[in-house]
Formats: sequence, structure tokens, C-alpha cells
Amino acid sequence: MKLRTDLPVIFDSFGEARQAGFLAVKELKEQGQPVIGAYCTFLPEELAIAGGAIQISLCSTSDETIPAAEEDLPRNLCPLIKSSYGFGKTDKCPYFYFSDLVVGETTCDGKKKMYEYMAQFKPTYVMQVPNSRDTEASFALWRDEIIRYKEKLEETLQTTITDEQVHDAIVFKNKERQARKDFYGLGKLNPPAITGTDIFKVMYGANYTFDKEKLIDTLNETTARIQQEYEEGKRLDPRPRILITGCPIGGVTEKVIRAVEDNGGIVVAFENCTVAKAVEQLVDEEKEVYDALTEKYINIGCACVSNNNTRVELLDQMIDDYQADGVLDMVLQACHPFAIESKRIKEFCQNEKEVPYMYLETDYSTSDVEQINTRVTAFLEMIGV
Amino acid sequence: MKLRTDLPVIFDSFGEARQAGFLAVKELKEQGQPVIGAYCTFLPEELAIAGGAIQISLCSTSDETIPAAEEDLPRNLCPLIKSSYGFGKTDKCPYFYFSDLVVGETTCDGKKKMYEYMAQFKPTYVMQVPNSRDTEASFALWRDEIIRYKEKLEETLQTTITDEQVHDAIVFKNKERQARKDFYGLGKLNPPAITGTDIFKVMYGANYTFDKEKLIDTLNETTARIQQEYEEGKRLDPRPRILITGCPIGGVTEKVIRAVEDNGGIVVAFENCTVAKAVEQLVDEEKEVYDALTEKYINIGCACVSNNNTRVELLDQMIDDYQADGVLDMVLQACHPFAIESKRIKEFCQNEKEVPYMYLETDYSTSDVEQINTRVTAFLEMIGV
Repeated sequence: MKLRTDLPVIFDSFGEARQAGFLAVKELKEQGQPVIGAYCTFLPEELAIAGGAIQISLCSTSDETIPAAEEDLPRNLCPLIKSSYGFGKTDKCPYFYFSDLVVGETTCDGKKKMYEYMAQFKPTYVMQVPNSRDTEASFALWRDEIIRYKEKLEETLQTTITDEQVHDAIVFKNKERQARKDFYGLGKLNPPAITGTDIFKVMYGANYTFDKEKLIDTLNETTARIQQEYEEGKRLDPRPRILITGCPIGGVTEKVIRAVEDNGGIVVAFENCTVAKAVEQLVDEEKEVYDALTEKYINIGCACVSNNNTRVELLDQMIDDYQADGVLDMVLQACHPFAIESKRIKEFCQNEKEVPYMYLETDYSTSDVEQINTRVTAFLEMIGV
Repeated sequence: MKLRTDLPVIFDSFGEARQAGFLAVKELKEQGQPVIGAYCTFLPEELAIAGGAIQISLCSTSDETIPAAEEDLPRNLCPLIKSSYGFGKTDKCPYFYFSDLVVGETTCDGKKKMYEYMAQFKPTYVMQVPNSRDTEASFALWRDEIIRYKEKLEETLQTTITDEQVHDAIVFKNKERQARKDFYGLGKLNPPAITGTDIFKVMYGANYTFDKEKLIDTLNETTARIQQEYEEGKRLDPRPRILITGCPIGGVTEKVIRAVEDNGGIVVAFENCTVAKAVEQLVDEEKEVYDALTEKYINIGCACVSNNNTRVELLDQMIDDYQADGVLDMVLQACHPFAIESKRIKEFCQNEKEVPYMYLETDYSTSDVEQINTRVTAFLEMIGV
């Protein structure tokens, strides 16, 4: 288990993966590789894998396409939705361009309705996520949606997806999940072994590493190397340990990570869709494949589901495991589900976990960077440590 | 079929029904009458009727309780949701106070998440509305939700609700729907027989008339009287005929109706939840009762469902039937579903129906009344006629 390159070089290479992937996906397409474009972690990647396709996260993290989106969508809508739509509309996202099928979900009102318009210029398929996970009928609905999506994939990819292939994909994807968990789990080390900036860079870049076998190896080797160096005494200075929760982060919104780490704190954990939220729970390899996928994906702790106890349970565990000194709840402007749920998260952190909580609402501009720095600095000072 | 009182007196009495109902509901409660509090037309009233309860629309149309709501909810949320929550929290709504059970639905993100908090101070039950109506599993989910709600009612009301009782309630509620349809259908007359202000006053007040037998008689007699007077030559001057669509109207937002009728237009139809949207389609009396209820309620053309073809179909029909010269789409601030869907409605009106369309976003303040007047006046002038 030997990495040829130094850790900073590996981190940077993950940091550049999204850009580098543009060329890679073009080459893959030229070799006849089908591509499924995805926006959300509710989409069971196992099915694309089983069908021989690769699933890629589509562009949604820059404000450059928001003006184009606002020609069709309300301005008072979350920047992630406007950005996603704008990238599709202006065809500025190579991943979108190369996607044979774009798959969305009815997670929130904004996405649910936005896809109606996206379908006018791109083959778009929408999965219906139930609003609750508390009844057998919710489970049945989501299971039906997963099977319907499998059938849509079979039609799009002109193939048949067998249960055995799905099972193989479950086992493989679990291996990837475990490698991710082991890597971002390094954040549990105290004093810290790695910054949140680097954890994030690797986890975000992993989404754009299409050779998944190689990804798993690189992640495992990197994790082992960091652990080894840590045991040899290479540690970062102790600083207030922040757990970030809330909406997905990426691109412009990495300003929130920087605000913590440039001002004396360290981000040790991310309870969000970019890192732990959809990865933490593996798919049960013993169960019937569609039952197993239904169970795994319906339990992703997104604020779009009511009640969202699974988020609180994961937070509960992570605050302890990562020894978080503070929780920063990052919410994108006009994201009603996460904005409303923040009251519950705040009360849970402050009353049940007795850990300081900060609510931070932001968008895809950089105009609030100084304001965020000021607020985060005050939060870190309040935490002290 | 003789009404003892004059029409304006009848209209005013409907206009005062909501206030007058406060005392009526108190008396009904004292007589042991159970009350189910409702927020949304997705709630199948037939079940409350079958269980011997009355279902009442809860307060949600004034801004007086919004500051209290904003202590717990984001400011950037639709005023209807904040108002509803605020009335509950401050206990300023007698209907809320007297409700044995409050029933909400997961229509939009805001309501879905708000009910999580309302449940902390009031017995609150939430029905899960599917995000789509296109699959058998959606139908199965909604049917299951209706039956679960029936069971919840049986528990709350300490009774058993038989299929026969539900069928009787369906027949009765259809009679009420037909009486409402016949009344608001007077708007089809051209030249007009009645203003939109009066149509609205009666339809809104009808929600607070708890003696439904009497309501049906009064509606039928009023409709007959107006028709008779119309045939005898009593007509209003022709004016630009406006169809209002969009979010529910009531209380402060009646400013939109006034803006049309004070500035030379007339509102002939309301394709919204206060008037036609949930009333137009009767429940099939021949089908198995839960299939029939599922089919009726899943087809209410709310923007929260994707796709929402049923709204466009109803609009299509109503624009023709009511000979609308213009469509005014009233959207409450931060209501993502209706705001996003407005693009489709605009294109449908302008391109397919070739009828002028106006988008109007407003909230529960009165500060935009002059601005609305100016915009509506310009719209009416543009229509000309």
C-alpha cells in the first residue's frame, strides 16, 4: 500500500477532478460509454452501474448561470436549483451536455417544478421521493419508483438489468462508500490529522473520478498514509472543532469551510449530501436488492422528508464521534425545508447535545464573504476551547 | 323557492359568516359537536362528515400573527403558512382553539415542515400528498393515506366510520359542490349578473356555514333568484372579464379582487382553492368509496403536484366557459410551486388560449395596494374590450 505522490498533491488532484473530468467524460463518451446525469444523492447509483453506465453529478454550484435561469424561474428560489437549471439551459455544463439522460427527484418544491421546464430541452426523468418515510405505503411508493427508474434505464441503455447485476453493484458501491467513510472518518482524530478543506476537496473530487476501482484504491491508500503519519506524530494544532450540517456545499459555498478554517477553527465533519449524509449507511447486501435499495435511500436524512429523524440521529452520532465543539448549519437562501428544519436542529444541538449552534444562510455570491467571516469568527471565539 | 331577504343582505351575511361562526362553533362544541380543523382542500371532508364531525377552515389569512410565527419560522416563507402557524401558536383563532384535531397535508415544503412544529402545541395529523399523480403507486399511496386518516378520525371521534356512511357523505357533499358550482357558475353570464366580489363573499362565507343543509338551500335559492332577475333584464355593464387563478385568496388578499373591480374590470371566475379548483369535479358515486375519494382529491390541480395538467385542463375549460378576457395569476410571496408554475400558465394563456395574462405576487400586507391598483389598471386598459 504505497502512494507514489505526496498527500498535498493527491488533495490537489482531487480538487481538480471536476474540471479534469470534462475531458475524461468526452473520451468516455467517444468510447460509447453511456452517462446518467444526477443532481441528488437520492438517486440509486447502483442501477446506473448495473446497467453499465456512469452516473455523474451535474453542475449546480456556480452563480454564472443564474441570470439565465431567472428568465424562467422566480428570483426568490434557492441558488442550487437556479444554477442547475441555468447550466442546462445555457449548455455550459459538459456533464449535462454528455448525459444521455438527466434524472431528477421531487425532493423539494423548487426542484420538482424546475424539472418540468428542464424536460423541455433535455431528456429528463423524475423520481418521486415520498414526503414521509413513516408508512408502508411510502416504502412501497419509493420501491416502485426505483423499479420504474430501473426500467427507464433499461430502455435508455438498451439493456436488461438483472437482480444479480444490481447485487454486484450494491457490493461494489458499498466498497466505495466504506472507502469514503474511512477517509472522511479521519476527521474523528483529535488532535486533527487533516483539515476540513482537504477532506472536502477529496470527497467532492471523488464524485468526478470515473474509474471507481482506482478511486477506492486511492482513497484507501490515502487514508492509510494519513493514519500512519498521524501515528508517527504528524498532527495539526487543536482548534475549535466544527461540524457542518445543512444544504449541499460545493463551488462558491466552500466559502463557509474557508470562513471556519481561516479564522482559527477546523471543520472535522460534514453532515451533508456532499460528504456523510448519503454515505454513512451502507446498503444491506443480504436483502432482496430492491428492498435493500429502498431502505437505504429512503433513509437519507434530507429535510425534504417529514419527519426527518434520521438526520437528527446521524447528527447525534457524529457530534459525539467527531467530538464537535460547534455545529454550523449552512442553509441556501430560499431553501424552505432546511431553513424550517433549522429550528429543530438548533434546539437539538443546544438543548440535547449542549453544543453551540450557528445558523448561516447564504447564496452563490461572494458578496457576503466578509459578513460570514465576522459571524464565524464570533462563533469560534464564543466556543473558545 | 322564495328568499325572504334581498340579495345584498344575503351577500353581506355570507361576508360576515366567518366572524359569526366563532360563536356558532362555540355553541356547537358545547353541545358535544366534534370539530376537525382544516387548512387545505386536499382534505376529504366526506370523512369528517361520515364520522359526525364538522370540518372547519382554520384562520390563515391575516398578517396579525405573522410576527409570532417568524419567531419560529423563516421570514422568507409564504404568508399563508406563517399566518396559519401564528394563529395556532398565539391561540387567536377560535376555530383552531375548538378543533379536536388539526389536519394538515404535505402539499408544499413550507406546510410539510411547519406542521412538525404545530404538532408540539396542538394535536396535529398530517396526510402525505403524493408529489405526482402519474403512477399507480401514487394512487395507492394517497388511497392508503385517506384510509389511515379515516382510522385516525375513528380513534379521535371514538366511532366507527362505515363505507355506507362515507357513501352518504359523498352524495351529500356532491350536493353541496353542485350548489356551489351552480352559484359561482353565474359568472359565466355575459353581460355579467354578479360581481366577483359577491361571488367570492358567498363562496368564502359558505366555508363557515356549518348547517350544510341550510347552506345548500340558500345557495340554490340565491342562484335561482339571480338567474330570474337576470332573465328579467337586471344586468351589470359589460367590463373586461377577469379570471383569477393561483394561490388561495381570502382576508387581506381580497385586495386583488378589489383592484380589478375598482378599476373597471369584473372578476367572473376563480380557478383557485377558495372557489372552483377543488369543487368543479364531483366524487364518483358509483365507485368503491375510497377509490372514488382518492381519484377526486388526487386530481385537485394544485401546483404542488408535478405535472399539474389538471390545472391547465380546468383553466382551459374555464377561460372558454367564462369568456375570460384576461387571466390574473395571484401568487403569494415565496410560494415556490405556484411561482414556478406561473411560467407554464403564462405560456398556456398567451400562446394556446391567446388571452392576456398578468402575474401578481403579493403578501398579507396592505402596503402594495396602490402598486397593485396601478398594475391592474394598466392590465385592464391593455385588454381594452
